[in-house]
Amino acid sequence: MKKPLILVSNDDGITARGIRQLVNVMSKLGEVVVVAPDSPQSGMGHAITIGDTLRLSKVDIFENADAYKCSGTPADCVKIAKHFVLKDRTPDLVVSGINHGSNTSISVLYSGTMSAAIEAALEGTPAIGFSLCDYDPDADFSHTLDYIETIATQALEKGITKGVALNVNFPPKRNEEIQGVKVCRQANAKWQEEFDQRFDPNGRRYFWMAGNFVNFDKGEDNDEWAIANNFVSIVPVMYDLTAHHAIASINEDWDI
Amino acid sequence: MKKPLILVSNDDGITARGIRQLVNVMSKLGEVVVVAPDSPQSGMGHAITIGDTLRLSKVDIFENADAYKCSGTPADCVKIAKHFVLKDRTPDLVVSGINHGSNTSISVLYSGTMSAAIEAALEGTPAIGFSLCDYDPDADFSHTLDYIETIATQALEKGITKGVALNVNFPPKRNEEIQGVKVCRQANAKWQEEFDQRFDPNGRRYFWMAGNFVNFDKGEDNDEWAIANNFVSIVPVMYDLTAHHAIASINEDWDI
Repeated sequence: MKKPLILVSNDDGITARGIRQLVNVMSKLGEVVVVAPDSPQSGMGHAITIGDTLRLSKVDIFENADAYKCSGTPADCVKIAKHFVLKDRTPDLVVSGINHGSNTSISVLYSGTMSAAIEAALEGTPAIGFSLCDYDPDADFSHTLDYIETIATQALEKGITKGVALNVNFPPKRNEEIQGVKVCRQANAKWQEEFDQRFDPNGRRYFWMAGNFVNFDKGEDNDEWAIANNFVSIVPVMYDLTAHHAIASINEDWDI
Repeated sequence: MKKPLILVSNDDGITARGIRQLVNVMSKLGEVVVVAPDSPQSGMGHAITIGDTLRLSKVDIFENADAYKCSGTPADCVKIAKHFVLKDRTPDLVVSGINHGSNTSISVLYSGTMSAAIEAALEGTPAIGFSLCDYDPDADFSHTLDYIETIATQALEKGITKGVALNVNFPPKRNEEIQGVKVCRQANAKWQEEFDQRFDPNGRRYFWMAGNFVNFDKGEDNDEWAIANNFVSIVPVMYDLTAHHAIASINEDWDI
């Protein structure tokens, strides 16, 4: 059987610890090509570079993968990988991460990690974003690696529903073993921002945005519940944002 | 009746022609506050500013609205409007645009215009993004204004389904009259990118990303069909990305 071709990206940048872990796991499963941002791109959502140029250069930092750093966003990286770096070859799987920090619930919207996966899904390639719900720069990834290998293997063997990417989150390393894997829906939660107003040395005002995560969801079938209860969460996500359930009420109630 | 409070943002920047048109229409319906990017933010998707500071300052460029320019993304603008500028007041409606260019179909993912609307929707505020499918900098907005007034009035009077924002696109001004309004689903289409490789004066390589829009959708109930046939399209969009239809197949077929 031909070795699968696996494209790896992330949003923390090509030198992040998480992507190195992901490359190591993927190199057991296939030929790995990395195209990742040359600097951190957290919170970039599904941004792409319009009206500005992109840089791309080969870097020799992985023993087990060809790698390219790109000046763009995670979505740019997947686009330039497909249309320039890989050109005539189509990846069998695109993986993104391992993100340093949670991408559960509403964070999927802001996530560069997931934008790389969603970008691949809309090109028809099975795609998975992996995130560790731990913001410690020295976070321990060891408990995630076997799960990542299993999930990626299943995606390669069984595929992923067309038009869908997987958002996989891992609980932080705790004393107890992970309880298993739950396929979940996205929890109903949001970030409650605060703006910390300060003044620079010239007396000009600036702000830091800070946020508290607020979970409104009392269900047990969502990703927040899974992580809180030490499960791995898998949320299948789609890029067709149509709220079909809202069409009828506009057609019935509105005078337009 | 109390005058409604309407927050206006966009992604083309606070000096764009489109936002001025939108402010003019909204000032007929209520009290208008503008918080918009100080520079163009097209293609920013749902990016937010993490790990960097934000600037915000009052600007006196609209006769009929208080206005603030912000150094951040459209999603940042809505957040800082809610938590700092408006503080104890909740807007009755958030509108974004009028975008210079289409946000139909898959472009909703990349759209800063729609990220402002979606950000508002997840705060529970009725929200609408308006876009004109015309990239001409001198594009004629005149045929959109009555429709915008009607749609915004309906949103104020009848509300929008919880968890949903509206993605409204207008056909370019044509010789024939607009045929009416269609509530649609997001068309199945994508951008097919090309990377134009060039070299700078120092001989270093760079790229411009260019794309062709490819429409796979043969249906007549989608936004691409509506625009092509000279209808205004309204797609209700949601921020719960869960692909519920894909949960069962993972639970059934995968060994995890």
